[in-house]
Amino acid sequence: MSRRTDNDTPRQPSQIAILRFLRIHGPAARIDIGNATGLSPATVTSLTADLIAQGLVKETQGTPSSANGSNGQSATRGRPKVLLDLVPGAACVIGVKLTINLVEIALGNFKGEIERSIQHSINTRDLDETSLVTTLCDLIDQFITDNRDIAPNPPVGVGIAIQGVADSNSGEIIWSPALRNRHIAITKPLRERFGGVVQMSNDANCIATAITQNNDLGGNGDFAVIMLGYGVGMGLVLNGAVYNGHFGAAAEFGHMKYQPDGPLCNCGRRGCIEAYIGDYAILRDASGLIDMPDANSLHPSEKQMMDLVKRARDGHEDLADLFRHAGKVLGYGIANLIALLGPERILITGSGARAYDLMEPEIERGLREAQVPELRSGPKIIHLPWDKDLALQGAIGQSLLRHDESMFANPPVN
Amino acid sequence: MSRRTDNDTPRQPSQIAILRFLRIHGPAARIDIGNATGLSPATVTSLTADLIAQGLVKETQGTPSSANGSNGQSATRGRPKVLLDLVPGAACVIGVKLTINLVEIALGNFKGEIERSIQHSINTRDLDETSLVTTLCDLIDQFITDNRDIAPNPPVGVGIAIQGVADSNSGEIIWSPALRNRHIAITKPLRERFGGVVQMSNDANCIATAITQNNDLGGNGDFAVIMLGYGVGMGLVLNGAVYNGHFGAAAEFGHMKYQPDGPLCNCGRRGCIEAYIGDYAILRDASGLIDMPDANSLHPSEKQMMDLVKRARDGHEDLADLFRHAGKVLGYGIANLIALLGPERILITGSGARAYDLMEPEIERGLREAQVPELRSGPKIIHLPWDKDLALQGAIGQSLLRHDESMFANPPVN
Repeated sequence: MSRRTDNDTPRQPSQIAILRFLRIHGPAARIDIGNATGLSPATVTSLTADLIAQGLVKETQGTPSSANGSNGQSATRGRPKVLLDLVPGAACVIGVKLTINLVEIALGNFKGEIERSIQHSINTRDLDETSLVTTLCDLIDQFITDNRDIAPNPPVGVGIAIQGVADSNSGEIIWSPALRNRHIAITKPLRERFGGVVQMSNDANCIATAITQNNDLGGNGDFAVIMLGYGVGMGLVLNGAVYNGHFGAAAEFGHMKYQPDGPLCNCGRRGCIEAYIGDYAILRDASGLIDMPDANSLHPSEKQMMDLVKRARDGHEDLADLFRHAGKVLGYGIANLIALLGPERILITGSGARAYDLMEPEIERGLREAQVPELRSGPKIIHLPWDKDLALQGAIGQSLLRHDESMFANPPVN
Repeated sequence: MSRRTDNDTPRQPSQIAILRFLRIHGPAARIDIGNATGLSPATVTSLTADLIAQGLVKETQGTPSSANGSNGQSATRGRPKVLLDLVPGAACVIGVKLTINLVEIALGNFKGEIERSIQHSINTRDLDETSLVTTLCDLIDQFITDNRDIAPNPPVGVGIAIQGVADSNSGEIIWSPALRNRHIAITKPLRERFGGVVQMSNDANCIATAITQNNDLGGNGDFAVIMLGYGVGMGLVLNGAVYNGHFGAAAEFGHMKYQPDGPLCNCGRRGCIEAYIGDYAILRDASGLIDMPDANSLHPSEKQMMDLVKRARDGHEDLADLFRHAGKVLGYGIANLIALLGPERILITGSGARAYDLMEPEIERGLREAQVPELRSGPKIIHLPWDKDLALQGAIGQSLLRHDESMFANPPVN
C-alpha cells in the first residue's frame, strides 16, 4: 500500500496551474504558489526555474498581496520578499467584442491586462459571413500594426466575445442580434489568418471567465453570472471552470420560459424570460406607454434606456411597473436556476442592471412566489455593478488560458 | 522541460479507478484495465497485486465482455484469458429506499449486485424524526440478522434513496412526500448505529448513479435523468459524476415553473412542472373527469394509475388529454433544461413513464414551441423503460463508491 507506482496518472500539467495562479493572484512567493497549487517546494522551484528560463515568469521584489495562498494565509505576509510574477510582454493576445453595431478590439498582455482598446461603430447587421470575416481581419490587422510600439510580436491568440448564442466547440455564431445571418463560422478563418489559438464564446461566458480570473470578484466554486442588457445571457461556472454544455451553447438563461404563449422573443419563440427583461423588450413595452419618437427597439441606446429608468424613478408608475415586472420575471428565472442547479452564488450584472434598484424588491417577490421554501436559504444573489466591461477582459483571459494549454498540454521532449 | 518533477500533484488514487472500472465493466484483462484507466502496465500489475492481496479482487478465467476498454476495443477479445474481477463477498452494503408508505431494504455485494431485498408496508407519514430513525434501524438490524447466511460480516456502508428533496451534503431529508415532518437528519444516527459510510440522496440522483455504473445504459459524459412518478425528479450527471449543487439539493427539475399562478404543487408553490405531470396531479385532475370512489391523490396506487392509462388508451379523450398535456409541460421543462445546460442526453424514466406513448408526441410539440430553433439539433431524448428499480441499485452503488474512497483516499503508510 505504500508503493508509489501510480505517477503515470494523466493530469493537468503543473505549469498551467502555476501560470493560472499568478495570473489570478498577481505576484506571489514560491511558498504561496506551492500552497495554492498543492505542488511541493522542490517542484515549484524546478518548474518556476523553467518558466523563468522561458521568459514567461520573472522574479520581483515586493510584499505579497493579502489574497495570496489558497487558504487566504500567506506565510510571507508583510515582509518584503522575492516574488514571482508573469512577464507582461511574454505574449500578447487580441480581444474582440462584437455587439450590435459595435466592434471593440483590445490588446491584452500575458498578465491578462488590457493595454489598449479601440471601438468601431459599424453597421454589423449589413455584414454577411464573408464581409464579417473580412471586416474583423482588417480591423485586427490595423490594430496590430497601430500597436507595434508596445506589442512588436504577433499575437499568440484571439479571443472573441459575441452577443447572442455561440457554439464554443465548433466556433460558430449560432445566432446573434448583431447579425442578420445565422450559423456563421468565425474562429476557423481567423485561425487561418492569424494562427495561434482562436477562441469564441458568448459575452456572458466571457464575463464568467473574467470573474474566475479575478480574485476580488470571488470567482471560485460554483456560480452563475446573469447578464442583463439587450438580451439576457448567463455564464455558468462549475468547479471554477466555465461550463459550456455538451453542444457548446449552454447557459441560455434568457430563453427559459416564464409564461407559455407570452410575448414574442427575439429568438422567434414566445414567453422567454428575455422577452420581458431585455432592453429591447422594455423599450418595446415603453413605446406603448409614452411618446418615444425615435424608439427603435432593435437597438435601444444606453441614453434611451437611462431616460426610461430616470422617468420611472421620478414617479412614472407605469414605466416603473415595467422594470418591477422585469424584476419579478427575473426572480422566477432565478428560482428555476436554483431548482435545477443550486449554485453557491448568482451574480447579476450587465448594462441592464442600471435599473437594479427598481427591480430588486420584485426579484425577491418572484423568488418568494416561485421557490420551494426549503430551498430558499441557498444561493446568495449579488448585484455586480457594471462599471467595467468584463466581456472583453474575459475574451482575453480565455485565449490566454488556451495558449497556456497549448504550450504545456503536450510538453516537448528535449 | 523534460524534467519529471511534478509527480506530487494531488489526484484520485488509481486503486479507486480500477475498482470503479471493474464494477462498471465486469471481469477484465489487465491490459484493458490499463487502457481504460490510463495506467501503465507496470502500475496495473502492481496495484492489482495489492488489491488481490487485500481480498478485493480475484483472478478468473473467461472471455472479456465486448464492452471492455475505454475505446470499445479489447486487445484480448475472443480468446479466453486470465481476467480480474471484484470479489463479491469482499464487502456488503445495505441499500434503503424510502417512498410513501413503503420501505425497501436490499443487500448489495462488493460488485454492486443486489443479492436479496425485502419490502415493508409502513405508514411512513405517521413517523416523526425519532420513530423514523428507530424504524429504519430496527428493519436494517433484522435484515442483517436474517441474511447472516450469505453476509456474515457487518455491512461497510448504508446507501439511502429518498423520495423528495434531500441534502446529500448534510444528510438531511429536506422534504419528502413520504413524511409529514420536514428537515429530518437521517445519515448521522444511522452512521452512529452501523458505522461505515452512510450516504443519502434523492431517488432520482440514485438512479443517475446507477446509470453511471451501468455500461449498457451508457452512463458517461453529461446527461440528465428525469424520473416521472409520484412527483418529478431529476438526476444530473456532469463529466460522469452526479452533480449535487453547492447545497446538496440541486436537480429539482419538477419544481421549475411551467406557468406562474398555475395549479398548486405539493411543495406549496404554484405552477411547478410536477403539478401537471406527477401521478398525484394527474389523479387529482382525473377525479374531476371520471368517477373514482377510492381516489386518494396523496398516494395514487400503481393500479389506479394503470387504470387511467388504459382508459386513456382505450379512447377516453379527456383522460388522454391529461397525459398529452403532461407531455407538453414536460417538453417545455426539457426545453428549459436544454437552454440552461445543454446536456448530451436526456433520459426519461420512472413509473410515471408508463404513459410515455401518450405523452411522447406532445413532448415533441412542447419542445418545438419552447426551444430556440438553433438549439434543437442538440440532446437526444431517450425513453428508458422502467422495468427494474434503479434507485435501490444506485443507493448501493453510491455507498460502494464512498467505501472505495474511504479505503484509498488516504492510503495507510506501512
